[in-house]
Amino acid sequence: MSSKITPNIVSPPKKIKVGILGATGTVGQRFITLLSDHPWFIIEALGASERSKGKRYREAVKWKQTIPLGGLGLGGIGTSETEKISSTDLRSDDRRVGDLIVKSCIPEEFKACQLVFSGLDADVAGDIESAFRSANISLFSNAKNYRRDPHVPLVVPLVNPSHFSIIPQQQRLHSPSLSKGFIVTNANCSTTGYVIPLAALEKAFGPIESVLVTTMQAISGAGYPGVPSLDILGNVVPYIGGEEEKIEWETLKILGGITDSETEFDKNGVPLKTFDMHQAGGRPALRVSASCNRVPVVDGHMECVSLRFHRRPPPSPQQVREALSAFTPEVQTLGCPSAPRKAIEVFEEPDRPQPRLDVKGTHNGAGVSVGRVRQCQVLDIKFVVLSDNVSIGAATSSIINAEYAVLKGVVS
Amino acid sequence: MSSKITPNIVSPPKKIKVGILGATGTVGQRFITLLSDHPWFIIEALGASERSKGKRYREAVKWKQTIPLGGLGLGGIGTSETEKISSTDLRSDDRRVGDLIVKSCIPEEFKACQLVFSGLDADVAGDIESAFRSANISLFSNAKNYRRDPHVPLVVPLVNPSHFSIIPQQQRLHSPSLSKGFIVTNANCSTTGYVIPLAALEKAFGPIESVLVTTMQAISGAGYPGVPSLDILGNVVPYIGGEEEKIEWETLKILGGITDSETEFDKNGVPLKTFDMHQAGGRPALRVSASCNRVPVVDGHMECVSLRFHRRPPPSPQQVREALSAFTPEVQTLGCPSAPRKAIEVFEEPDRPQPRLDVKGTHNGAGVSVGRVRQCQVLDIKFVVLSDNVSIGAATSSIINAEYAVLKGVVS
Amino acid sequence: MSSKITPNIVSPPKKIKVGILGATGTVGQRFITLLSDHPWFIIEALGASERSKGKRYREAVKWKQTIPLGGLGLGGIGTSETEKISSTDLRSDDRRVGDLIVKSCIPEEFKACQLVFSGLDADVAGDIESAFRSANISLFSNAKNYRRDPHVPLVVPLVNPSHFSIIPQQQRLHSPSLSKGFIVTNANCSTTGYVIPLAALEKAFGPIESVLVTTMQAISGAGYPGVPSLDILGNVVPYIGGEEEKIEWETLKILGGITDSETEFDKNGVPLKTFDMHQAGGRPALRVSASCNRVPVVDGHMECVSLRFHRRPPPSPQQVREALSAFTPEVQTLGCPSAPRKAIEVFEEPDRPQPRLDVKGTHNGAGVSVGRVRQCQVLDIKFVVLSDNVSIGAATSSIINAEYAVLKGVVS
Amino acid sequence: MSSKITPNIVSPPKKIKVGILGATGTVGQRFITLLSDHPWFIIEALGASERSKGKRYREAVKWKQTIPLGGLGLGGIGTSETEKISSTDLRSDDRRVGDLIVKSCIPEEFKACQLVFSGLDADVAGDIESAFRSANISLFSNAKNYRRDPHVPLVVPLVNPSHFSIIPQQQRLHSPSLSKGFIVTNANCSTTGYVIPLAALEKAFGPIESVLVTTMQAISGAGYPGVPSLDILGNVVPYIGGEEEKIEWETLKILGGITDSETEFDKNGVPLKTFDMHQAGGRPALRVSASCNRVPVVDGHMECVSLRFHRRPPPSPQQVREALSAFTPEVQTLGCPSAPRKAIEVFEEPDRPQPRLDVKGTHNGAGVSVGRVRQCQVLDIKFVVLSDNVSIGAATSSIINAEYAVLKGVVS
Repeated sequence: MSSKITPNIVSPPKKIKVGILGATGTVGQRFITLLSDHPWFIIEALGASERSKGKRYREAVKWKQTIPLGGLGLGGIGTSETEKISSTDLRSDDRRVGDLIVKSCIPEEFKACQLVFSGLDADVAGDIESAFRSANISLFSNAKNYRRDPHVPLVVPLVNPSHFSIIPQQQRLHSPSLSKGFIVTNANCSTTGYVIPLAALEKAFGPIESVLVTTMQAISGAGYPGVPSLDILGNVVPYIGGEEEKIEWETLKILGGITDSETEFDKNGVPLKTFDMHQAGGRPALRVSASCNRVPVVDGHMECVSLRFHRRPPPSPQQVREALSAFTPEVQTLGCPSAPRKAIEVFEEPDRPQPRLDVKGTHNGAGVSVGRVRQCQVLDIKFVVLSDNVSIGAATSSIINAEYAVLKGVVS
Repeated sequence: MSSKITPNIVSPPKKIKVGILGATGTVGQRFITLLSDHPWFIIEALGASERSKGKRYREAVKWKQTIPLGGLGLGGIGTSETEKISSTDLRSDDRRVGDLIVKSCIPEEFKACQLVFSGLDADVAGDIESAFRSANISLFSNAKNYRRDPHVPLVVPLVNPSHFSIIPQQQRLHSPSLSKGFIVTNANCSTTGYVIPLAALEKAFGPIESVLVTTMQAISGAGYPGVPSLDILGNVVPYIGGEEEKIEWETLKILGGITDSETEFDKNGVPLKTFDMHQAGGRPALRVSASCNRVPVVDGHMECVSLRFHRRPPPSPQQVREALSAFTPEVQTLGCPSAPRKAIEVFEEPDRPQPRLDVKGTHNGAGVSVGRVRQCQVLDIKFVVLSDNVSIGAATSSIINAEYAVLKGVVS
Repeated sequence: MSSKITPNIVSPPKKIKVGILGATGTVGQRFITLLSDHPWFIIEALGASERSKGKRYREAVKWKQTIPLGGLGLGGIGTSETEKISSTDLRSDDRRVGDLIVKSCIPEEFKACQLVFSGLDADVAGDIESAFRSANISLFSNAKNYRRDPHVPLVVPLVNPSHFSIIPQQQRLHSPSLSKGFIVTNANCSTTGYVIPLAALEKAFGPIESVLVTTMQAISGAGYPGVPSLDILGNVVPYIGGEEEKIEWETLKILGGITDSETEFDKNGVPLKTFDMHQAGGRPALRVSASCNRVPVVDGHMECVSLRFHRRPPPSPQQVREALSAFTPEVQTLGCPSAPRKAIEVFEEPDRPQPRLDVKGTHNGAGVSVGRVRQCQVLDIKFVVLSDNVSIGAATSSIINAEYAVLKGVVS
Repeated sequence: MSSKITPNIVSPPKKIKVGILGATGTVGQRFITLLSDHPWFIIEALGASERSKGKRYREAVKWKQTIPLGGLGLGGIGTSETEKISSTDLRSDDRRVGDLIVKSCIPEEFKACQLVFSGLDADVAGDIESAFRSANISLFSNAKNYRRDPHVPLVVPLVNPSHFSIIPQQQRLHSPSLSKGFIVTNANCSTTGYVIPLAALEKAFGPIESVLVTTMQAISGAGYPGVPSLDILGNVVPYIGGEEEKIEWETLKILGGITDSETEFDKNGVPLKTFDMHQAGGRPALRVSASCNRVPVVDGHMECVSLRFHRRPPPSPQQVREALSAFTPEVQTLGCPSAPRKAIEVFEEPDRPQPRLDVKGTHNGAGVSVGRVRQCQVLDIKFVVLSDNVSIGAATSSIINAEYAVLKGVVS
């Protein structure tokens, strides 16, 4: 982690008011479920489309979570701006998230929030998220719109939170420079799952040269209504629009580093730091080839990974297993409350992990599960990785990113 | 095709009596369905375990085909040995396969058959099939027991029927030499599906250097009762026992050639011809790496294939598409009645083929479907291939092999 | 059948040009598949929404049938108005339905058609179908809009084609009376399936007093995109909007008769014939209670039926089985080409019929399958019935209705 | 609850050692999962077949629960007979249930247990359970073998724990009378789910006259390997062997009462109390008709229920909803730790409950969920009920029964 952000870890404030954009959608519902008993974050405001505006959340939403809306742990549910927060109040029956009035997704409605999560659809996220940043609001987005922006970090919290160090540059690009507003994105669900073991292996054995990944992705990754049942029941669809490209370039940005731009300069004429996927931050070249499939599974992306290291000879399967199991990301050591106790659970059984049995693993969906580590006859090593696409693959990543930002003083 | 088998194509006899071993099992039921209106083959005898022996077939079988047993096309249903066959009789209502008395799987019971198909389970197939060969009966087996035997051809009919040329050697190994008895096997279902486009590409562009294949296999590939529903409903199982190894070495035997053995000799001291997977018949080395998964699909194995050619530069995706589409196996030109009209159907749509929609394709399950031909960032080319695991992946291959043998005079 | 329509059965004309409204939708695709090799009907014109207008059908449609668009039997594919039809032409490669230019759903575009099928969605079917009738075009609709109209017959072709006798009244209601234009509807898919055995039993044993039916309906019944996969994968949804009401009143209209209206009169002051569900055509009262569920099945509605007869003592299960098996609807004896060879297939096996194995049955989806006929401890008899909701439950019914109308001279 | 068992509620002992028979099977695994953090019960001994005997549990079992064996809450895991129990020990890593040595299912091995749960298969449960009773061990069985025994209570804990009052009679039938040994069974999973709302309605509105129930049952109800995937994927099987009969008579025994036998007498010549399903304990006749279906759902039995009350006029749907929601079984008021907070959750949404979303409900699988309460056109009222077949439908019921027995002093 770059010391440029903050030299010391900050004690988290008792309660941090947060907002959720796109609150009625699939990702928004996940944010609410995960934040409903968060130790720091209090849901203060919910934003959705004009159709939902002004309604109570329970009337606006078509709730699709297995935990009933009325049964959510109520530790973090917000309160109106003028009232004092007490934990007694928060947990009282009449103050539930279901009763919050849905707001428009405009910055003025979220002024009471110290940070905002975005579960917006890509077709509206671009303008709205930009407006929130310009209004000096810290925004943690699950949308894809700004992932390719060379000044926006694309952060898988178990892999590259150090990329937060580019935020000051992102803020300086505005005139006047922003003091609090920024956008941080998390990665596509299928990228997030498999890049965690890749990062663990690069940390242990040095750079990877090439990766072939074949995914079998759950339907919940497509949101709601998402995949029509006639397309997927008893079927496999060997195509997910844009997904392969996302995996191929997001991996490069996430595992790559930050370089000084040769073409962009700040107001003082100093070269801007930037993500350059071609240079990849000075690391050796990495080639990624992805094949994406949709399968009739509700939750849990399975990915079959084969990879080749630069280092010769490559590590053995047993060394790989040990390195994966030992991987301890910074967000764990730092104490992010939503970080998994174990980042990578390694299975020895020949037929595990499996989505239906293992998607939550022992990490409750915030880590990943790896199995079948063995030699590859073509590259070096192959294995399968299973990730909970609606947790670490989506809202959970945004939340850990926000926790990290709080602990590092990026959000104050 | 080697001229050593027969210099001329033989006209098929009007009616060829055939037997089916393992007739009550999943593969056996497929043999019966496919042979029930075959233009040449007449089902003469059905063999099954002692439990079924002596019962009428309809009472012995738990029929699981979508075509009712009573609704089968009745063109090929047999008759007792002493009766004269007429096509009128054959199609009459009282002569249906359901009324045949199930026999023991011993050669004595199948003497009236000119050839026998085996859908036996591997745990009994070894001894029974060997006994049939020793009794001078031509046997076309779907079981795995003799696939690795260096003198038994492992034939994917759309790929390597030329390997039939080793049969005389197989027969000479017996004392006295067999005149009619031999064993021909077909390949594992997941090998069969993906090796057909590999063969087409090697024919067009020369040897392949390496292949990475990730399978998503249907439950029908595991027979009945097969996969417990609790294991697969809404799930993916990233493991099928022994399957990856089968794909990896079967591919070498099928795409490789026949060499003179340096260690085995016939009775005249002449080196025996043999399959040598290490030498692979003189072809350049081929490395294969497979990852096998079971998915909740009833019929149709999907396989994501990435491969690298020896030839540099490699062919373009468009050249690959054209070569696949143009592929015409010998069994087509020769006129095998069960050969597909088109061996490889190439889809242009980005999301096809799909098992539920395309498993039968325009080839009724006797060919394969390929889609998504595109460049691979790590190897050269990637695509998906879909095959009907219960047709070309199993009984249909045995039947085309037998048709080929008849046309080539190997079976008389 | 009332002699008021026609005293004699008419020989069918060699070729009858037909149109299809809503041709790109799920039901429209079924019409095309079924009509592509119809012995009488030639697809002359395809209508769809403005978005598709002017495109070739193959470009306008997202084809979802297991038979490829290019692989359709081509016996009935149309031709431009000025060309002569020959069967050679029809089957030639360049004359396929995929090349037809999609038209607007306005009567002017369908003048060359002798009858038109409608697979339109309910939100547009009302006005369009009315316009076609007013333009003196015979219309066979699968939409629900006119099913409750007291002068529009709601015809399950295996049950109540005699209700066609009300068409002259429907035509007289227009000024001037229509000579050819009329609307005939077929019933909702879940009604169609279970009302066929009810009709068979009423024919054999007299009126039924009460029916309890619990459905387990396939996803294809909801069209495309229809049911979101997140709602139904590994799930049951105990609700289908409006479906229970449809079953409850459609059954009364279909099994009921036609009475003289006491409130409506034709231009000569004669009471109009009308469907009166309360009087139910003089038959004894019938009470129907339906519970509808969606299940993760692709095709095939299963319905558990319990019923009580008026007659005491009621028939035995064996008598019921025999009556169902013997049921021969008029459309069979009349020779409608799409009528099933057997209307009701009765299974003796305890665990059949099942959707995946039996949906097509021996009747290719044009009849129904009944199993588990047994005594009910509360009413008299219970059984399960399985129907192919996309065949007899939808387009096939419209087509048999049209065939009946042709044979009876209602369409000329 | 009869005062004959115990006049006062007994304080539960701190720790009660329990055994589990059939520990490696599906039900046994559920017992272990549920008991692993039970406040009273400590798993002391595990019994399974000879094949597993002598192995560590983790090696003997093919664990199929979503909670990993190593991740179980460890509050109740046992200890060897000679060691002192401390909660520290119990939770230490080396004392996990996975390390227990599996024993034979013979009473000698379970002497340290104060009560024993049986998850045995029916083919062995009869003799084993009888031997345990004779060895004076209290046995709570999930097997079906003794359900019909007129002296064995068949207890759905939320419905008829008062039937425990027959246990003294069951014990007196042995010579000498048993002091502690008895067998209590719980009901079949599909009976359990729907009989709970029936009991609630009888309590509120008096006897029910007739019930028609159509089930859609999950695959987990059939155990492991249970239903072959080829039978159920994308399918419905309209038959579960013996299930309809079980529902029909179990309902009568559970909702009926206990009468004095006219044919059986104890040693003193006093008529024995007995369950007499024909007299049904003096209650008015109840007729039950069941139709059972297997559907591709993992967990959760859905049942469509129509019923008629004796009372005229019958209650309205709203009265029924209120009575269901207000239902408070004795096991709740008594304080059984595994009793649900709410016995019956009533949904107002038209499309709920659904198995995938609601199987655990707000009662964590220990209660049931009811929805769609509405009038029935044939009987009086209809609704759907969803129950967690592996919780309240199986092991959870045995456990609540045991808790009740402890609180009532039946087990000491």
